[in-house]
Amino acid sequence: MTRVRIDLNISLDGFASTADQSPENPMGEDWGRLTEAYVATRTFQSRVLGNTNGAGTTGVDDAYAVAYFEVVGAEIMGAGMYGLHAFPDDPEWKGWWGDEPPFGCPVYVLTSTAPRPSIPMQGGTTFHFRAAAIEDVLAEATDAAGGQDVRVGGGVSTAREFLRAGLVDQLHVAIAPILLGRGDRLWDDLRGLELTHKVTTEVAESGTTHVTFAR
Amino acid sequence: MTRVRIDLNISLDGFASTADQSPENPMGEDWGRLTEAYVATRTFQSRVLGNTNGAGTTGVDDAYAVAYFEVVGAEIMGAGMYGLHAFPDDPEWKGWWGDEPPFGCPVYVLTSTAPRPSIPMQGGTTFHFRAAAIEDVLAEATDAAGGQDVRVGGGVSTAREFLRAGLVDQLHVAIAPILLGRGDRLWDDLRGLELTHKVTTEVAESGTTHVTFAR
Repeated sequence: MTRVRIDLNISLDGFASTADQSPENPMGEDWGRLTEAYVATRTFQSRVLGNTNGAGTTGVDDAYAVAYFEVVGAEIMGAGMYGLHAFPDDPEWKGWWGDEPPFGCPVYVLTSTAPRPSIPMQGGTTFHFRAAAIEDVLAEATDAAGGQDVRVGGGVSTAREFLRAGLVDQLHVAIAPILLGRGDRLWDDLRGLELTHKVTTEVAESGTTHVTFAR
Repeated sequence: MTRVRIDLNISLDGFASTADQSPENPMGEDWGRLTEAYVATRTFQSRVLGNTNGAGTTGVDDAYAVAYFEVVGAEIMGAGMYGLHAFPDDPEWKGWWGDEPPFGCPVYVLTSTAPRPSIPMQGGTTFHFRAAAIEDVLAEATDAAGGQDVRVGGGVSTAREFLRAGLVDQLHVAIAPILLGRGDRLWDDLRGLELTHKVTTEVAESGTTHVTFAR
């Protein structure tokens, strides 16, 4: 059965991305520190960077990295994560991820601007652009996922929108033991999520704390 | 050697106390949920509630509770934690803790209002009121602690003030797996604390995550 999932890397003070994004540095300068333990895993090294020599960590962080890549059949993301805010006037913009994005499935980009044609990419990713209500986009993504999970990829405001609407079955956050003090807060206006979801917590060898809210 | 310590109970979204405090309910209605795992420990049950029948948890939470009560020779707290904001015009106000407060040492209350005489209480606690700079109050408290630790007890804004000034050797937070969505944020403006302090993290059986920043 399809579950709606969110996986995010945040700081101990709850920032999931930073305010200093730019076309040259799309994730901002703090992003590397937020994702350091994830990037170090053997799964990220092989799945994303193509290092097939066995490099990377194999502990708790890697177990979550393995789960991250499991059974996602469709992805939803906000316009900002895709880059529409950075390149609003470029109908040819194809996201930050190169010719073969790591999704390998249909990706639904939420936008309030004029619709643009879908963009098929190498490796199974196709970008679709939707101006509909999030419930309707989720229904379409769920259909496309064919029984696999739907991931709400981000950014933070999109994740919060789905969480507040009660549409998310599983939220996994990897909390880096750092204080950023700036950026976008994940936790705003989510009081009581622990009342509808069961919380589990696990600390990795890296010091990263993995917290999962699951329905 | 004296260390300057802070120990706080916060929610996963970083709230250390709530905005709904009142004379009738001085800690606010969320306080019970924030401190549930701590109150359940055998150490809290015996040290604070006087239950000497062995009741209470004995796991990770209790180990931190034991450490909480160790070697504190003086305490500093903000006017709000003491109750000066709730009872500004009552020179006889003696705090929320009854005739025998649980501190058992000199307690320095930071205030910007007119000085009032010190108040000796039963059990070794004496309340002193100081309008000086936090560095000067800390120097006096350190002297009074006689080689034991000085605790900055709270509230949140007082804790942040000492942290931002670089005066704190050890910050321990017990993070309850709940989202409060309201109250006072501990983490504001503390970017980079992990660069001056070593961070360790441990998850208790209760689901509480204990994070310690230590110099």
